[in-house]
Amino acid sequence: MKIIFLGTSASKPTSERNPSSVALQYNNGEFMLFDCGEGTQRQMIKKVSPMKISKIFITHLHADHIVGIIGLIQSMKLNGRTQLLQIFVPKDTLEYMKTLFSIPYFSADFEIHIIEVFDEKIEFDGYWIKPFPVSHGVPAVGYVFGVNDSRGKFNKKLCDELGIKREMFSILEKNGKIEVNGKEISIDEVTGKLKKGKKIVYTGDTEKIEIFPEEAYHCDVLIHDSTFISPEDKKETYHSTVKEACETGMVLSAKKIVLTHISQRYETKEVEEESKKYCENAIVAEDFLEINL
Amino acid sequence: MKIIFLGTSASKPTSERNPSSVALQYNNGEFMLFDCGEGTQRQMIKKVSPMKISKIFITHLHADHIVGIIGLIQSMKLNGRTQLLQIFVPKDTLEYMKTLFSIPYFSADFEIHIIEVFDEKIEFDGYWIKPFPVSHGVPAVGYVFGVNDSRGKFNKKLCDELGIKREMFSILEKNGKIEVNGKEISIDEVTGKLKKGKKIVYTGDTEKIEIFPEEAYHCDVLIHDSTFISPEDKKETYHSTVKEACETGMVLSAKKIVLTHISQRYETKEVEEESKKYCENAIVAEDFLEINL
Repeated sequence: MKIIFLGTSASKPTSERNPSSVALQYNNGEFMLFDCGEGTQRQMIKKVSPMKISKIFITHLHADHIVGIIGLIQSMKLNGRTQLLQIFVPKDTLEYMKTLFSIPYFSADFEIHIIEVFDEKIEFDGYWIKPFPVSHGVPAVGYVFGVNDSRGKFNKKLCDELGIKREMFSILEKNGKIEVNGKEISIDEVTGKLKKGKKIVYTGDTEKIEIFPEEAYHCDVLIHDSTFISPEDKKETYHSTVKEACETGMVLSAKKIVLTHISQRYETKEVEEESKKYCENAIVAEDFLEINL
Repeated sequence: MKIIFLGTSASKPTSERNPSSVALQYNNGEFMLFDCGEGTQRQMIKKVSPMKISKIFITHLHADHIVGIIGLIQSMKLNGRTQLLQIFVPKDTLEYMKTLFSIPYFSADFEIHIIEVFDEKIEFDGYWIKPFPVSHGVPAVGYVFGVNDSRGKFNKKLCDELGIKREMFSILEKNGKIEVNGKEISIDEVTGKLKKGKKIVYTGDTEKIEIFPEEAYHCDVLIHDSTFISPEDKKETYHSTVKEACETGMVLSAKKIVLTHISQRYETKEVEEESKKYCENAIVAEDFLEINL
């Protein structure tokens, strides 16, 4: 699994940073996007195949998080996409998305499902999403993305000894047990150690929040709004400082904290230095940063 | 006056080319945009000040020509813009623009006038625009941008001899004549040779068209859709080949032809070589190409 930062700027693009988008490449090559700011499809070139994107998770509808979806869909259409695209948006924003796609120039000729989310967990094949409300002055959510635990590999030597042939693996997989030579064998007996799933938390834009779903704790990666260094720059905006992002990471016991949505007034180095005051496991995202999990 | 090519790709961005936009810097520092594809505001960095853009001329509403307007307006808003922005769109598209800006996330807090155009000439202070219908399968126009002829500089030596003082220049300018020592002097007598205006024609996306307004003839620069090299690649799309763009340039007696909206399937060099078969005064636009007039 791989996280690819496609856009890490705050509000406006800079020479170095594009507006917000994070791509996630799931094990089987499926891609998901978290937000899709203007210019995302250009950032994707040589990194993310538009045709392999199955789902786009939008945190809120500010232009720097959503505008790229229009061109991306038109490019998918030009490429002859037929596969369903699912777009997840915060509760109370569905009507605006429908209005956007009601403009014939922005419509698709393949199926798009737009799904409103708030805090209900959604299960997919092998992974799940847990949206949670954040505080950004408009309808906004963050997302916990989780990969289910998976069983270890078949111990082929043991299987041979017990008379479990290769063609029986799928039956064992399906039923969790199999009878061989009059003996019932469970899958756990012939497979290795459980492979622990992974968890990524992406807050989108938010001021510091205190309430997270239990799924967010002990995440492998926390990607947090970190627009400002000083509270004086932050003022009354609904964003977080580096300190607040780091504190949240510690509260959640995140293994790694990635600071993003960096205001153009700062150099990356400044933000890095600020983060080191509060924690050792924080890094500052830059466009095209990749994290393998 | 300066033309800056901000985006020269066809439909989709490539590593080298962004979707369509051409900026025009008028004499006094005022900027205008012709189309505003996704990512235009990022292309503008260090080239075009968003706050100095007075007018945006849209040729048609396909996403690769219009999507950048959303983020650009949000950035203008963040920068505290108060100045009016005029957006010109083809006839029969006003409702779609209104729908787009009805989405509260995309609205502005400064004044925006959206004006539908078809083929009526519009006069501004020192320059004019003449839209003309093109053929792109959707409501679409091209634009002739013209700068008015302007008088030559005051011949200061002659003015001194005739007793015309500096403070009289504005009166002479306003009335076209002045009485000095009982003698009436017209402005033409004391100013240099008329400075001929300039004309730029921008077609936007179009298949080859035969009918142009008279204002388009003898233009200084023709910027023409040149998506394809071969008619086989072009198929039934509403775009032009290099050959067709060059032929149009010759029909219009354009001083310079700039080929743009280049399909990603071609190398710039191939397009250049193709153009040389038909005319000597054609160049292929690349992002950030600048032409001074």
